[in-house]
Amino acid sequence: MTIRFGLLGAGRIGKVHAKAVTGNPAAKLVAVSDAMPAAAQAIADQYGCDVRTIEAIAAAKDIDAVVICTPTDTHADLIEQFVKAGKAVFCEKPIDLSLARVKQCLEVVRAHKGTLMVGFNRRFDPHFQAVRGEIDKGTIGLVEMVVITSRDPGAPPVDYIKRSGGIFRDMTIHDFDMARFLLGEEVSEVSAMAAVLVDPAIGKAGDSDSVQVMLKTATGKMAVISNSRRATYGYDQRIEVHGSGGSVAAENQRPVSIEVATGAGYTRPPLHDFFMTRYTEAYAAEIAAFIDAMGGKAQASPSGEDGLLALALAEAALKSVAEGRVVKMSEIL
Amino acid sequence: MTIRFGLLGAGRIGKVHAKAVTGNPAAKLVAVSDAMPAAAQAIADQYGCDVRTIEAIAAAKDIDAVVICTPTDTHADLIEQFVKAGKAVFCEKPIDLSLARVKQCLEVVRAHKGTLMVGFNRRFDPHFQAVRGEIDKGTIGLVEMVVITSRDPGAPPVDYIKRSGGIFRDMTIHDFDMARFLLGEEVSEVSAMAAVLVDPAIGKAGDSDSVQVMLKTATGKMAVISNSRRATYGYDQRIEVHGSGGSVAAENQRPVSIEVATGAGYTRPPLHDFFMTRYTEAYAAEIAAFIDAMGGKAQASPSGEDGLLALALAEAALKSVAEGRVVKMSEIL
Amino acid sequence: MTIRFGLLGAGRIGKVHAKAVTGNPAAKLVAVSDAMPAAAQAIADQYGCDVRTIEAIAAAKDIDAVVICTPTDTHADLIEQFVKAGKAVFCEKPIDLSLARVKQCLEVVRAHKGTLMVGFNRRFDPHFQAVRGEIDKGTIGLVEMVVITSRDPGAPPVDYIKRSGGIFRDMTIHDFDMARFLLGEEVSEVSAMAAVLVDPAIGKAGDSDSVQVMLKTATGKMAVISNSRRATYGYDQRIEVHGSGGSVAAENQRPVSIEVATGAGYTRPPLHDFFMTRYTEAYAAEIAAFIDAMGGKAQASPSGEDGLLALALAEAALKSVAEGRVVKMSEIL
Amino acid sequence: MTIRFGLLGAGRIGKVHAKAVTGNPAAKLVAVSDAMPAAAQAIADQYGCDVRTIEAIAAAKDIDAVVICTPTDTHADLIEQFVKAGKAVFCEKPIDLSLARVKQCLEVVRAHKGTLMVGFNRRFDPHFQAVRGEIDKGTIGLVEMVVITSRDPGAPPVDYIKRSGGIFRDMTIHDFDMARFLLGEEVSEVSAMAAVLVDPAIGKAGDSDSVQVMLKTATGKMAVISNSRRATYGYDQRIEVHGSGGSVAAENQRPVSIEVATGAGYTRPPLHDFFMTRYTEAYAAEIAAFIDAMGGKAQASPSGEDGLLALALAEAALKSVAEGRVVKMSEIL
Repeated sequence: MTIRFGLLGAGRIGKVHAKAVTGNPAAKLVAVSDAMPAAAQAIADQYGCDVRTIEAIAAAKDIDAVVICTPTDTHADLIEQFVKAGKAVFCEKPIDLSLARVKQCLEVVRAHKGTLMVGFNRRFDPHFQAVRGEIDKGTIGLVEMVVITSRDPGAPPVDYIKRSGGIFRDMTIHDFDMARFLLGEEVSEVSAMAAVLVDPAIGKAGDSDSVQVMLKTATGKMAVISNSRRATYGYDQRIEVHGSGGSVAAENQRPVSIEVATGAGYTRPPLHDFFMTRYTEAYAAEIAAFIDAMGGKAQASPSGEDGLLALALAEAALKSVAEGRVVKMSEIL
Repeated sequence: MTIRFGLLGAGRIGKVHAKAVTGNPAAKLVAVSDAMPAAAQAIADQYGCDVRTIEAIAAAKDIDAVVICTPTDTHADLIEQFVKAGKAVFCEKPIDLSLARVKQCLEVVRAHKGTLMVGFNRRFDPHFQAVRGEIDKGTIGLVEMVVITSRDPGAPPVDYIKRSGGIFRDMTIHDFDMARFLLGEEVSEVSAMAAVLVDPAIGKAGDSDSVQVMLKTATGKMAVISNSRRATYGYDQRIEVHGSGGSVAAENQRPVSIEVATGAGYTRPPLHDFFMTRYTEAYAAEIAAFIDAMGGKAQASPSGEDGLLALALAEAALKSVAEGRVVKMSEIL
Repeated sequence: MTIRFGLLGAGRIGKVHAKAVTGNPAAKLVAVSDAMPAAAQAIADQYGCDVRTIEAIAAAKDIDAVVICTPTDTHADLIEQFVKAGKAVFCEKPIDLSLARVKQCLEVVRAHKGTLMVGFNRRFDPHFQAVRGEIDKGTIGLVEMVVITSRDPGAPPVDYIKRSGGIFRDMTIHDFDMARFLLGEEVSEVSAMAAVLVDPAIGKAGDSDSVQVMLKTATGKMAVISNSRRATYGYDQRIEVHGSGGSVAAENQRPVSIEVATGAGYTRPPLHDFFMTRYTEAYAAEIAAFIDAMGGKAQASPSGEDGLLALALAEAALKSVAEGRVVKMSEIL
Repeated sequence: MTIRFGLLGAGRIGKVHAKAVTGNPAAKLVAVSDAMPAAAQAIADQYGCDVRTIEAIAAAKDIDAVVICTPTDTHADLIEQFVKAGKAVFCEKPIDLSLARVKQCLEVVRAHKGTLMVGFNRRFDPHFQAVRGEIDKGTIGLVEMVVITSRDPGAPPVDYIKRSGGIFRDMTIHDFDMARFLLGEEVSEVSAMAAVLVDPAIGKAGDSDSVQVMLKTATGKMAVISNSRRATYGYDQRIEVHGSGGSVAAENQRPVSIEVATGAGYTRPPLHDFFMTRYTEAYAAEIAAFIDAMGGKAQASPSGEDGLLALALAEAALKSVAEGRVVKMSEIL
């Protein structure tokens, strides 16, 4: 059976998903929609699909599922609309920037017994999956401490920053999800520090560009995240997990892995330039997982609940910075 | 303009090329042919193309180019047939196991001003290309010595060995081409040693399974190749080039690059299992290069001449082993 | 000129310093003292020096400097006694577990214009020094974030734990000093989390065995430290520093650096077993630096003040854990 | 029991051994001799030993063993003189540049039941020893192929080259010994290629500066050595051994192992500058092994016989280059 897809949003991430869908033998891209017709048409031309309105896609008999890649403030509404229309929904993170709105949206999904999967792509990176695999196999014993490094090559435009919900909801949210994925227990306490070190304009916009966060679970497992909007050497994405029996780590990936040796030393090329090249395989794998979930082979995961919990950690981090104290998750949820 | 392809041979390597052709936006797979109808049909079903006879493909108006993936002993005949039919030809290595037959075939290609490209896929590996790129940029000065390690994870069946032309023509030929690609000068002298260390059955079949070869050019540049039909840790493919100003090396690639640390030490997973996973990107890139050559953007390279010269090095290596001496290329060509 | 040393304390770390002193061409070990005569005699026999009482060493005309390696609760008294006796003093960290006592002791040192150096050995590790060297050269621009990983191979006996002042004063103190060494600015805020994950007996003794700490300076530079009393794969000691122009990192060291490849993957041996093998060169270099300071070639560094400030960070971390909040250093000092 | 040493030769390598002897708790440096009195005096001053003539050292009752670090052309004579005088002899490689003279010398050693150890220091490098250790433990199964890379940072003065016996006897000889150490079987065939790529003056002096050698044993085990007198990135010393069950490799060592990441990529510092810093531990360990051999704890190894066999491989390589063929060791020995 081939799953027939509609794509909502033909921007940067929309293109990534268009490629993932068309590259999957079990899927077919039927239609694309975008507020900017030229963007939709470009994808339609490349992959031979229709351009349709959102309403037409919701009403379409030849579409089983949608991938939502529109601006964040439309996510929750679209999820509700398409769940009600009986389509399976894959939505880019975050569901919404407001915790209350997310909860409301998940109510609607539950009420309609909808299929909702949230795009925490990193869970599908083969290297991070292998890290989780070693944990599951017991190679490192009981998980004790998780260390996550996530540094973007450069800051986005301040206009983007202003609409992003801030670094914790926009960038760290991926690391919050990864921490949950690896800790294997819910976080109960959050402490965060934030600074503006990269670009004063980010500070003027009310956001930070450099943050570090500590997490702790009820049984004492801990995680630490360090983030920056700047990394001159490429997209820095590393995780390590320490357990009672050992540790497992996923190092950075690079597009070309030669090494040049001269009198100046040994030099390897920079890392991937950003998420689209770094997580190419992950994007394909998450669409495959979504298709599996639609076929009943697996639960849709990461779920809407996972989206909610990562956002709640971002809220807690913001509150921790504002109040200079450890915030308990029971204060947030 | 879309290049319309016929695929000759639907075996293991045929499937690789079917994927490369269909994944290329400038190409379309129109038809496939194979002595075993079921094999051809499987590819036709997966990619939505026709099954046709070789003759039909040669005569087809809707086919511009063919990819030859049939058994080695049919290569030269097919190249001649399709060049005469006005198709551009991409042929898997080797053109033939006989130097004389290869020369004859290349005469026909020249006489018909045909486009012929030979499948030395490793030239298109992004890591090896980056090595060559550093040489071209002058990073390491003048090339002096090349060191090539190429070890297969396991020996092929003895039936395959018997038809293969022997390890130098079947396996080392890739390394001979890589040595030529990196030395930037023609080899003038060859010395080789060979042994049966992996499987006595290979020795009984008249072949070796472990070899090492030294090459030298007229100006004294040298290369050394070491090959084995056995590598328990995966497909071992490394090159290093030393020059007057430094060196550049391409290390092994692995599908998953985590590291586990326990009391037993630090462990990374094995390498790729074989060429199909190791050289995925290279197969796609060589088809892209072939398409560029058809469009006149570049010369078809590696050329039939490159195929001839790599085979000549294999001949020289065989003669060197047989006679226990350095063989000059002027004795062979 | 040869500096003539007395060694106070002939235990594990006393032996390390005896070796460092006797191996230094500008130094001579004249006498050793220990509460356990057999321990002192063993060092005397090995290096051909006298066994003397502490009082005799303080009064000795043939001794210029002492190395204090006695139990922590004697450090401050001995520093005062030997500074008054006109000897240069190298004292193992910490000066004392009480901030008030340390301040008092440093008053005495200042009043007598004494030379005091504190044994933060890691500053002298060639790899960490090279990290600092790159910062000083400006290679990575302005320092923004420091990440320190420090994991002991195993927990010390609970008896030791009880007298140690707790993990922050005993173990993390080295990382606090390293953070100050690398941040290049004083820390103004501290937030810490602590847990008992390794050994419940450590918890019963009122201490933690797993901690993570975030630090921040007035200008927003940040550091994060993660510590555990357990690392099955050896003594895990890593630092990385991120700046506006790049980053610099010091990886783990191992006594033997081979790599074995089999079907199970690629395995390197475990790390050094603990600080005595990991920091061999650092111990020799810190004694050399002390000798240089005595000869007026450099300031004694790390100074008593450095000892005080690292201890103050430990105090702040303890307070942060107890009160679940960010602690300002102005509350401590 | 303390072994009392005389040191013959106070040049560069003499200083290395003076340090190794005086640093060994079981040894004492009693006297040093050199044709240049100032050189001998410098060592005597540094380590507090006598300056004596060679004759006086041979006759001395307070000397048990000598370390010969004089020019190569004096080695064989001194070995004979000191074996006859009843001293244990440690001699720097080579025993002599003439195979006949070496054989004669070893006859004298045997006749006097002397203890003779030859300074193939690399056998004592902890990393190379660990490689051998894995072979002995069976980790990689039966040894099949050895790959040795040895590249000097720069060429020695042509005056040295002229007296050196040529690159095979001077430089490759270490790799010949290492190949024998790792193959675990005697070499039966040798094939070599040589070129002048680094410095034409070396060619004018009748020597080569870039060579590659293949070795083979009677059972088909093989080794390949590649050498150059130039490596801009430091002293390049690597070995890898492939066996039926896996492989083991020793990578290069560097004095400082940080990594800097910037927009230009990831850079590690160059390797050790040359053998004195690279093999510091090996020099100490080989003197310790010599002392053990004198105490009867082990055979003196590498023996005079090992010195002879490595030289014979150098002879074979020279003959192979001269005659353009594989040379059988039965032609040489």
